[in-house]
Amino acid sequence: MINQNDIEIVSKTLTFWDKLSTAQKELIKKNANLFHYKKGALLHGGENDCIGVLIIKTGTIRTYILSDEGREVTLFRLDSNDVCILSASCILQTITFDVQVEAETDCDIIQINSNTFSKITSENIYAENYSYQLTTERFSDVMWAMQQILFTSFDKRLAAFLLDESTKNDSDTIKMTHEQIAKYMGSAREVVSRMLKYFSNEGCVSLSRGGIHIIDKKKLRSFI
Amino acid sequence: MINQNDIEIVSKTLTFWDKLSTAQKELIKKNANLFHYKKGALLHGGENDCIGVLIIKTGTIRTYILSDEGREVTLFRLDSNDVCILSASCILQTITFDVQVEAETDCDIIQINSNTFSKITSENIYAENYSYQLTTERFSDVMWAMQQILFTSFDKRLAAFLLDESTKNDSDTIKMTHEQIAKYMGSAREVVSRMLKYFSNEGCVSLSRGGIHIIDKKKLRSFI
Repeated sequence: MINQNDIEIVSKTLTFWDKLSTAQKELIKKNANLFHYKKGALLHGGENDCIGVLIIKTGTIRTYILSDEGREVTLFRLDSNDVCILSASCILQTITFDVQVEAETDCDIIQINSNTFSKITSENIYAENYSYQLTTERFSDVMWAMQQILFTSFDKRLAAFLLDESTKNDSDTIKMTHEQIAKYMGSAREVVSRMLKYFSNEGCVSLSRGGIHIIDKKKLRSFI
Repeated sequence: MINQNDIEIVSKTLTFWDKLSTAQKELIKKNANLFHYKKGALLHGGENDCIGVLIIKTGTIRTYILSDEGREVTLFRLDSNDVCILSASCILQTITFDVQVEAETDCDIIQINSNTFSKITSENIYAENYSYQLTTERFSDVMWAMQQILFTSFDKRLAAFLLDESTKNDSDTIKMTHEQIAKYMGSAREVVSRMLKYFSNEGCVSLSRGGIHIIDKKKLRSFI
């Protein structure tokens, strides 16, 4: 059960809300819950499977795939007001793949469990259509990531990543280890370290224990 | 305009057919056409953009992405009775990426142009839902391809590819050039040639002008 403010958020976010019957609206209200997730928590994947549809109030979640050897490749991230549907993938027949979803920062998330959402989508074509349309949006995100990974050389990708992080956090210092960056980029630590060393030699960044400090944005941007 | 037999195919293939009004059915019948495409023809992508929904009667089409440098990565193939929706991607708002679709063999295809399909999906929620559901199916195909490309080592992938081709064509000889195989696998010719040489040294295949001949299936399978 969620409070009136969160019900407002749910009804505005789920664009099919007006197409629901009163009973269906009540069912969602009754089965929606607000959860707080700590940074790093695994929301979906492995043992925490198919927890339901997630409406992100605050924070960022990251969706990625995981190889048998534990290699991660980030597919996309979602922020406040975004809705995560792949965490309810079990209720959509045509999704036959598995992803992992983790809290990249502390998150407040309104969660509608899979059973409830499954009932609604089976009864209401507009709800079902919303789910597939949202999944198609994620398909677009994945295609973008795939083209980046397969077609863009690593220097470009790393430069873009550092500038994105800098803009996102409004800081010239990126407080991440080389290992963490490698994970986000689906690469290996050695590859990241080597390229950062190169950027450092070129005078674009300086490296320290605290992270990576961008000292020449223009030059770094010239790699993209 | 298509004949009665093809109308039967359309009405059975488009699972939302019974939810259409008589006028909508007539509109589709009037605007569906049967086309024959020669092997190698580019159906969608570049200048042939958004030709519409394709119902494959006979043959195989291949969907791939193309880098600025002309590198191809195959996403999936579709065969008889399959429906291609990405060739009508312009009518689905949430698709923001571009793919290429080509006839991999000679094909007979029933084509419903994008204007017609757009009108139907905007009027009929079941048609729209069908389109997004089908797109989600392709999303699953792409995720499979992506995991193969990113996580499976090349020897496994090439062995699997050769065995698949062999089964598909019911022949132990794969009549393709190394260049063609590289294209299908999103790799480079040199990489394919090197690995085939290795398989040849291992006694799994023999190489000749005519193509690749599998001489030890069991051994080749052991790489997978």
